[in-house]
Amino acid sequence: MATDSRDVLDRVDRDKKAYLEQLKSYLRIPSVSTDPSYRDDVLGCAAWLTEQMRSAGLTAETIETDGYPLVYGEWCGAPGKPTVLFYGHYDVQPVDPIELWRHPPFEPTEEGDRLVCRGATDDKGQSFAHLMAVAAILEERGELPVNVKFIVEGEEESGGEAIEAFVREDAGRRLSCDCVVVSDSSMYGPGQPSLIYGLKGMAYLELKVTGPNRDLHSGTYGGVVTNPLNALAQIVARLQDPKTGKVQIPGFYDDVRPLEDWERKEFAALPFDEDDYKNAIGVKELWGEDGYTPTERAWARPTCDVNGIFGGYQGEGAKTVLPSWAGLKISMRLVPDQDPKKIAAALTSFVHEVAPPGVEVEVHEHHGADPILVKLEGPIVDAALAAMEDVWGKRPVKVREGGSIPIVATFGQVLQVPTLLLGFGLKDDALHAPNEKFNISHFYNGIRSIVRLIDRMADIEN
Amino acid sequence: MATDSRDVLDRVDRDKKAYLEQLKSYLRIPSVSTDPSYRDDVLGCAAWLTEQMRSAGLTAETIETDGYPLVYGEWCGAPGKPTVLFYGHYDVQPVDPIELWRHPPFEPTEEGDRLVCRGATDDKGQSFAHLMAVAAILEERGELPVNVKFIVEGEEESGGEAIEAFVREDAGRRLSCDCVVVSDSSMYGPGQPSLIYGLKGMAYLELKVTGPNRDLHSGTYGGVVTNPLNALAQIVARLQDPKTGKVQIPGFYDDVRPLEDWERKEFAALPFDEDDYKNAIGVKELWGEDGYTPTERAWARPTCDVNGIFGGYQGEGAKTVLPSWAGLKISMRLVPDQDPKKIAAALTSFVHEVAPPGVEVEVHEHHGADPILVKLEGPIVDAALAAMEDVWGKRPVKVREGGSIPIVATFGQVLQVPTLLLGFGLKDDALHAPNEKFNISHFYNGIRSIVRLIDRMADIEN
Repeated sequence: MATDSRDVLDRVDRDKKAYLEQLKSYLRIPSVSTDPSYRDDVLGCAAWLTEQMRSAGLTAETIETDGYPLVYGEWCGAPGKPTVLFYGHYDVQPVDPIELWRHPPFEPTEEGDRLVCRGATDDKGQSFAHLMAVAAILEERGELPVNVKFIVEGEEESGGEAIEAFVREDAGRRLSCDCVVVSDSSMYGPGQPSLIYGLKGMAYLELKVTGPNRDLHSGTYGGVVTNPLNALAQIVARLQDPKTGKVQIPGFYDDVRPLEDWERKEFAALPFDEDDYKNAIGVKELWGEDGYTPTERAWARPTCDVNGIFGGYQGEGAKTVLPSWAGLKISMRLVPDQDPKKIAAALTSFVHEVAPPGVEVEVHEHHGADPILVKLEGPIVDAALAAMEDVWGKRPVKVREGGSIPIVATFGQVLQVPTLLLGFGLKDDALHAPNEKFNISHFYNGIRSIVRLIDRMADIEN
Repeated sequence: MATDSRDVLDRVDRDKKAYLEQLKSYLRIPSVSTDPSYRDDVLGCAAWLTEQMRSAGLTAETIETDGYPLVYGEWCGAPGKPTVLFYGHYDVQPVDPIELWRHPPFEPTEEGDRLVCRGATDDKGQSFAHLMAVAAILEERGELPVNVKFIVEGEEESGGEAIEAFVREDAGRRLSCDCVVVSDSSMYGPGQPSLIYGLKGMAYLELKVTGPNRDLHSGTYGGVVTNPLNALAQIVARLQDPKTGKVQIPGFYDDVRPLEDWERKEFAALPFDEDDYKNAIGVKELWGEDGYTPTERAWARPTCDVNGIFGGYQGEGAKTVLPSWAGLKISMRLVPDQDPKKIAAALTSFVHEVAPPGVEVEVHEHHGADPILVKLEGPIVDAALAAMEDVWGKRPVKVREGGSIPIVATFGQVLQVPTLLLGFGLKDDALHAPNEKFNISHFYNGIRSIVRLIDRMADIEN
């Protein structure tokens, strides 16, 4: 009966401008979590969102943490029916370089179908669509056909660990659910709904290569002692085979789950214009592991990238120092079933093994993330795929991503339920960049998609 | 008659405290040429030194340049006799980190035989010994047995090119002489007088390796495009064979003049305790080109050192950027008869050849320096060796150095005369570091050495 959602979708059509105005109010709050000078705004944003959840008909509260608060809301009036947990974040990236913005970054501005504002797509706009869908159903029907919970954090952009701690401590009590829905990603292309079923994990290490106990004169000591900068380069060069692109750390590929045939076919069928891709980032050639397409490498093969390198003299002109030490930040994006701890240990052993004589190497391990692969079967995934097709008129493609969302792995481990990564953004949304935008039609379709998801979930036997 | 210099040496013994007080006045002027806030002090220092030369009995003037002035003085009342040109610099290094100084850095403080002050040895103390020697002779005898000229610059520590321009423009007119004397170096060891007959030259290049046109997300693009930091490491690693320590740039060793047998013997006879050497700089192993001792490598074999490396994220914590570019500062210390221009060109070709696909490499060449080898024969070198032995009671060792003093190469090219590198410093003088010192006994022996050099030069048939 409710499966066609006509009642609510009609209401969404009537009220969508009001939802957009509410989103604009949300976007006007400059909730930049990385910059302490915005602290009051971040706190104010949490309070605003809590109030907004209450207006929508949820029981909501602001949960204090060691960092910025979590906003939690729920409606659990459908006992025996499935429970959907919606995750999002209310904090946003800084706005630098501010001079490149066409409008004040916290004044949402419509440019045709585009709503330009910091946070428009990442993640206020996308996750607010969840809340507006629930609000529309409650307003139209006075009740929901499933139970819903919302957990929205304020430290996603600043690497805060409040949510991680909360989820682990909660241990699936308050957050118990049948699936998690996250909309903090993009569709594969315009008009092409997508279900992301895989995310990479990560091991991130920092190396310090130390030689002499102080900076030396390169004339006096050059050729006599190992130069830590040269040594660091030697170490990094050993990590990858320059011909095959294979990572040379022993055991690196041991636990890699091979791409399945259906995946290779699904990825190969996606539109991909290599020239457009190269032109967009200004490179003449792509490069990577032999035997895999660029898409396969980006989504399903582990990689190893230096993220930062530093040491010696970096100023203008020439200084002839033989520096005491050199530093490196390096990350490996991992795929199922690689274990970040195991890979970090393998890299650590390897760098000690290949380090030239005359230097010491210290390795510091940053927080890692587990890779994710959601099983693409069962009624929940079917409901999600069908809901997206209902709204966008096209079967969603099943894709993976090269990025990591650490909290998704935590949800999987603690809650033991699938996470549906249903992004409504587009690749040209300029996340983290000036003139971030969200297509207004995508905001509306996002609301519609969640309405349909909820109605389709109601049909699942719990 | 004057060959034993007894008259002047007695005067030096009587007046040495007065010379030390004059040096202290010189040291109190904070002539830091790298820091514009000391500009008035640097200029004041030039004026003070000019006045000091006049008091000593020279005709002296301050010569304006595009940068800090040169101080020039001369006494040319011995026609038909040899002319000695003394070079030095009146500017000093900055004092950071100031908190590590035991006394105010510009207040000369005696600690037993040590005079602690910025500039004490580099180069005020050492080059002031030249002037005090001339002053002592003139005061005692009213005349000099040879002609002397002084050229003292104020930009040695800041890489200024005023003196280079002046020497080239002068083209050996005003500066015409029979030899140049430079005291801006160390003795091989305490009590061991040394004549440095070789200096390394240098080619210094800066590389910029550029990949994508902007910083990319390492999750989205890792494994698909060449990472400029990984690429830079690959390039640097190709420069040297990690096993033999040989530089791999084609043609690099083509023009290297092999060490002569007498040099290998002379160097091997020098006291060198490898454990002390390693302990002093805190390394467990020395490393360098196969087939040469550490001393041979440091003094007479060309080397290749990275002086700076930079790119990507260098701050606290983990940022997963795949950066657009990476930078490198690299220098090669050269030996006779390597040509800095030719070597720079060889490196440039090589890096373009070994650069991996997907990145562009730009090379910028900094100012180079020619290597120096002074012929160890002829009456001038003999006079210098004998003068040093007269004062220090020990035959000077003939050594080379790994450092470069570009102006020495220019003197050689323009004036076509030998340069005598007669250093009075010690290796523990803490040049460029906190608590720089000069042994007071070395200051006095420096004065005596120059007195003897002048008297011995007088005996040379011009």
